[in-house]
Amino acid sequence: MEEAGYTGVALRLLRRAGARPGDRIRIERSDGRVFEGVLMPRYAISARPIIVVKLDNGYNIGVRVDEGTRIEVVKTREAILHEAAAGAPAAVPLLEEQPPPGKRPRVTILGTGGTIASKVEYETGAVRPAFSAEEILEAVPEVGFIADISSRVVMNILSENMRPKYWEKIVDEAAKAIQEGAEGIVVAHGTDTMAYTASALAFAFRGLPVPIAFVGAQRSSDRPSSDAAFNLVAATLVAARAPFAEVVVVMHGEAGDTYALAHRATRVRKMHTSRRDAFQTINGRPLAKIYPFEGRIELRDKPLRERGREELHVVNGFEEKVALVKYYPGMEAELIDFLVDRGYRGIVLEGTGLGHVGEWLVESIRRAVEQGVVVVMTSQTLFGRVNMNVYTTGRKLLQAGVIPGEDMLPEVAFVKLSWILAHTHDPREAGRMLRENLAGEITYRHTLDLYPRWPH
Amino acid sequence: MEEAGYTGVALRLLRRAGARPGDRIRIERSDGRVFEGVLMPRYAISARPIIVVKLDNGYNIGVRVDEGTRIEVVKTREAILHEAAAGAPAAVPLLEEQPPPGKRPRVTILGTGGTIASKVEYETGAVRPAFSAEEILEAVPEVGFIADISSRVVMNILSENMRPKYWEKIVDEAAKAIQEGAEGIVVAHGTDTMAYTASALAFAFRGLPVPIAFVGAQRSSDRPSSDAAFNLVAATLVAARAPFAEVVVVMHGEAGDTYALAHRATRVRKMHTSRRDAFQTINGRPLAKIYPFEGRIELRDKPLRERGREELHVVNGFEEKVALVKYYPGMEAELIDFLVDRGYRGIVLEGTGLGHVGEWLVESIRRAVEQGVVVVMTSQTLFGRVNMNVYTTGRKLLQAGVIPGEDMLPEVAFVKLSWILAHTHDPREAGRMLRENLAGEITYRHTLDLYPRWPH
Repeated sequence: MEEAGYTGVALRLLRRAGARPGDRIRIERSDGRVFEGVLMPRYAISARPIIVVKLDNGYNIGVRVDEGTRIEVVKTREAILHEAAAGAPAAVPLLEEQPPPGKRPRVTILGTGGTIASKVEYETGAVRPAFSAEEILEAVPEVGFIADISSRVVMNILSENMRPKYWEKIVDEAAKAIQEGAEGIVVAHGTDTMAYTASALAFAFRGLPVPIAFVGAQRSSDRPSSDAAFNLVAATLVAARAPFAEVVVVMHGEAGDTYALAHRATRVRKMHTSRRDAFQTINGRPLAKIYPFEGRIELRDKPLRERGREELHVVNGFEEKVALVKYYPGMEAELIDFLVDRGYRGIVLEGTGLGHVGEWLVESIRRAVEQGVVVVMTSQTLFGRVNMNVYTTGRKLLQAGVIPGEDMLPEVAFVKLSWILAHTHDPREAGRMLRENLAGEITYRHTLDLYPRWPH
Repeated sequence: MEEAGYTGVALRLLRRAGARPGDRIRIERSDGRVFEGVLMPRYAISARPIIVVKLDNGYNIGVRVDEGTRIEVVKTREAILHEAAAGAPAAVPLLEEQPPPGKRPRVTILGTGGTIASKVEYETGAVRPAFSAEEILEAVPEVGFIADISSRVVMNILSENMRPKYWEKIVDEAAKAIQEGAEGIVVAHGTDTMAYTASALAFAFRGLPVPIAFVGAQRSSDRPSSDAAFNLVAATLVAARAPFAEVVVVMHGEAGDTYALAHRATRVRKMHTSRRDAFQTINGRPLAKIYPFEGRIELRDKPLRERGREELHVVNGFEEKVALVKYYPGMEAELIDFLVDRGYRGIVLEGTGLGHVGEWLVESIRRAVEQGVVVVMTSQTLFGRVNMNVYTTGRKLLQAGVIPGEDMLPEVAFVKLSWILAHTHDPREAGRMLRENLAGEITYRHTLDLYPRWPH
């Protein structure tokens, strides 16, 4: 029996049964309850007498054991792997060919809160975040098998409560972990605003030697359908082994448990309220496809930065006086005037089509620009590229000083402008930086196949 | 020679050549220029000596002719149809099996402006709308072949300049045309805000006996790649013959010229700045697939209202004091306070994930509700359904009086609230109507296959 993190009574029981991680085992407890699944290694910090098994639904559970518990091996890991090679699904090929603990890539997991490690609040029945590194390692022991894990709780908030000033703290903690030798960073984050925060880091890390993988869960980890474990394993794999050094969002790639996708932080958007594969790349392709239980990462796009090439270089800081304003028919000019009067320094418009708003807004926008407010145009269509030279309204807006946002997502243009305005007070310089592709947020050519296929 | 709308010199030339609509002809003008294509019928109002041919790129042109012009038939329509049956593309099977003019379904085309009939403004190089019914019939003679057309220019604006008060005028004109005997309505509209206007009509027509098909063009009709003709033929076909009596948006279904889709007005969104297939149904399926040149309409979803079942019943009116507010990290509460102070009666929030905003906004939202403002929650993910019972923030917002918008698109919730608040001053009644499915804008169950397939 390899120890695989087990001690005390759990280790004695496993040795007696001759069970090794990867074997399918049956646990019969002294209270009569029976559990069957694949034995997982345990890299938790606590010494509680728990044996971790992966159930057939893919969910890991920790089974509390005592001296009266009986364990038997139902099928060895060799037999399971043999079946896998013959086409049956393999639960744990990850367990093969790993360097020993202490020799694995060093990955730091930063906790910020969110469903990824949330628990049901029994008083109200609602789900509340309860994130600690120990809880994560206990719930998802595979993580400890891929990498030598350290962790830090940066904050513990629901991601709808995230704001630009908090992005700065996450940037600082990630930079500190890299300076201390982390070979990859995982940021566990609520899914609601994960794409915003991930793109904030993509702008702040001007030089980045290792990957930073954001990860979340659409369903909390106490539900059998939770995607927390699968996503965390995939994100840890990206942090530990990906050949690129970019900020990505790693989440389920489809409704099942086959693969995850690593989306470039400046191209990703949460596109569904509840599906596991809610996160999708817009106007581009995901950077990589990840088969977490096979330990495999397939590149799907050319990385912008390779691992280990760049020195760490952080330009931190986000301006909070930036607004994202979605245009709608009849929107009144006083909304723009209000932002200018309240001292906003930047406005990202989410216009219609190629980048338009009602012509009655042009004068207020011109006034905003004259007062030094930086105004950027994006499109509420999400796909495609702003082009303000085609129609009269676009040309009037350009004349008023609006900066066309190319094919940037509105949310990403908002984060980019917030970052830019924290570092320059010169609107011309801000305009120049907005038009420049700094972190993959602008792509100068699209191919037809980047548009999804819609059901009909 | 069937007359097919030709008179004077054009008719004499065609008779001399023995050319009939649907034949492939070659026109050699006295100035030496040669044109080859399929002879189209002509239902224009002007008497100019023009012969309309469909070029191989699918674009119709009007060739000015005189007595010195020579015309020959290159291939008869029977030969073309025979080839089509053998697999080659058929340009004009529509020309077969039509009732004679005066016996065709009566369709009224309402012009509101937009690219569908725009022309290049030569001074600036930009495209400006120039819509008249005559111009449409001259450019797209197939329309006159499908239906007995009448038309009316309701307004001539770029659709980014559309506003709720203008929706009322379009409702009135469509109702008037139906009262006068139209068996279907086509509304030619700029694409930028077409989905908003279409959903406005879906709410205003509480009883509707005929289809109303909105149509636009992503590329102006003086460009060979224009989708104007294809879309207008498809929309006219829907207006003339569809078995449903719903408000739909009819636009290209894919990048080529194979089929168009009729999207339910309350489910459609412009999803790309420039593609022909920019319009897509979200959280549902398109109502029908249309093969305009085969005259075929295939249903893809169950109609909510069948043609000819209901009496016309219009409840017109839209409140302009309604705002659509997209949430972003750090959004300040003063933006909500400002709307309340300025007398807004309704606010549609485009929140994150299942329907959240930063908790620091809850107090301002509660104050808004207490002052009688109706606040609705939708999601910026677009796909999926708001569920405010899962997390603490959602529950706090519900307690503050926010109405969950189910699976309504943010833009549709905005239009619906504008319509509701024009007809009731009771926030409870408004809340009740918001939760009710009035025009297909709420669907109580989704199937997994409604989510698009994303490229990776």
